[in-house]
Amino acid sequence: MDAQGGDRPIGVFDSGVGGLTVVRALMERLPLENIIYFGDTARVPYGVKSVATIGQFTGQIVDFLLRREVKMLIVACNTMAAVALKTVVQRAGNVPVLDVIEAGARASVAGANGTRIGVIGTPTTINSNAYARRIHALDPDARVYSQACPLFVPLVEEGWLDHPVTRLTAQEYLRPVLAEGIGSLVLGCTHYPLLKPLLRDVVGEKIQLIDSAETTAELAAAHLREMGQAAAGQAPAACRYFVTDVPLRFQTIGERFLGRSLGEIERVDW
Amino acid sequence: MDAQGGDRPIGVFDSGVGGLTVVRALMERLPLENIIYFGDTARVPYGVKSVATIGQFTGQIVDFLLRREVKMLIVACNTMAAVALKTVVQRAGNVPVLDVIEAGARASVAGANGTRIGVIGTPTTINSNAYARRIHALDPDARVYSQACPLFVPLVEEGWLDHPVTRLTAQEYLRPVLAEGIGSLVLGCTHYPLLKPLLRDVVGEKIQLIDSAETTAELAAAHLREMGQAAAGQAPAACRYFVTDVPLRFQTIGERFLGRSLGEIERVDW
Repeated sequence: MDAQGGDRPIGVFDSGVGGLTVVRALMERLPLENIIYFGDTARVPYGVKSVATIGQFTGQIVDFLLRREVKMLIVACNTMAAVALKTVVQRAGNVPVLDVIEAGARASVAGANGTRIGVIGTPTTINSNAYARRIHALDPDARVYSQACPLFVPLVEEGWLDHPVTRLTAQEYLRPVLAEGIGSLVLGCTHYPLLKPLLRDVVGEKIQLIDSAETTAELAAAHLREMGQAAAGQAPAACRYFVTDVPLRFQTIGERFLGRSLGEIERVDW
Repeated sequence: MDAQGGDRPIGVFDSGVGGLTVVRALMERLPLENIIYFGDTARVPYGVKSVATIGQFTGQIVDFLLRREVKMLIVACNTMAAVALKTVVQRAGNVPVLDVIEAGARASVAGANGTRIGVIGTPTTINSNAYARRIHALDPDARVYSQACPLFVPLVEEGWLDHPVTRLTAQEYLRPVLAEGIGSLVLGCTHYPLLKPLLRDVVGEKIQLIDSAETTAELAAAHLREMGQAAAGQAPAACRYFVTDVPLRFQTIGERFLGRSLGEIERVDW
């Protein structure tokens, strides 16, 4: 094993704070790894922007992380994974690239709950059809039922994780996919893991909820093991947070996503 | 009257599509005026960004409109009016500047419904305390009760203008200000005029709803008359729309705000 290589950080990036759910899952699954998180909080949300604009912003972030010599890139943003993955892979060169959509798609076809799969996400993710394409590439017999849930992100950011308004909204959004008799439901947005308890109530006990933060951490662990690039843990693992803006409520919302204190946040001025 | 000057366009700007409610009110109140609208759709929303970032973005937009020789600038964005008005006024030089907060504040103290005034808006607008300051400058006896309503913008953009979820959300947000016995309620965000029928139901018949799109159009009409700068109407009035991105759903949402077809949209590449 290349110890020096293994101690290089994992680069995780998102358009805002949502990707912190992936950082949280990585910290739990791979506690020895150093992590650099990049959140483009000055330009969030990407989900309502054009493909050309998203591609341009993504390229900037990838270059930033590559200059910091990351050993792996994790696209912790469904929108970027849906419409700008090629840009990431092209710029990354030899650095391996994982993304939340690939992780969610793999987990959904590996599940024991049959081939009827529901996917929820932001309008851009759903309209890109990226989950359906990746799931079909893995299992041509799978049937994918998709639903855009544009209000879930603002509801999570408002902190209404267990609120009658959120419940009513979830019931309305999920009615069509539940009517299709799905066996599993992919939470195709990094904000959605915070709604898991409420979604569990709304969908019932029988449907498997696929949390792409957890599945991404699993995939990262497997890749690092295969490559012989896992951290040796000679120094305490560190996480650095870079953002393009430190907006109102960032600390509060960020810590809700991360499930612990954020520590120092470094602002990048673009 | 300076006819050539009068035929110069009015420049209206916002962080996104919300300012189109002001354009709509201007078209109805001042149908002979040429209008240039600028929506910074690549970087929307401003309401969650820092004051420094908002100031920088605002300066760029103002310079863009001044190069197009506007005769008046209208800040159709509560966030920019709340935290970046000085930047606008400094750059504008001799060009007069109106803004939605000033218009809403004036209408609220001019109302016949007493001095207990409610104000609703985005978190940034409410936290800036800009409405309370402007209202107090006009009437030191006024009592202002403010409430941030972060979910109203996404609910309007989802098109849930008359939906049980929106009604429940409005009831929850408005409960504290209604308990204060307010006589009028300022809709301190350009998205909120689309919720007027629902808000009317929630607050009852006795409270005056102050729509800052309408009040801004009134203020613009008065200013142009005083300055002798009203359009002569020798050519059909035109409206040009500039945006920094043409995102998914822009046409649909924009036309809902404008209440008519948008025509050609020009993309500015920053």
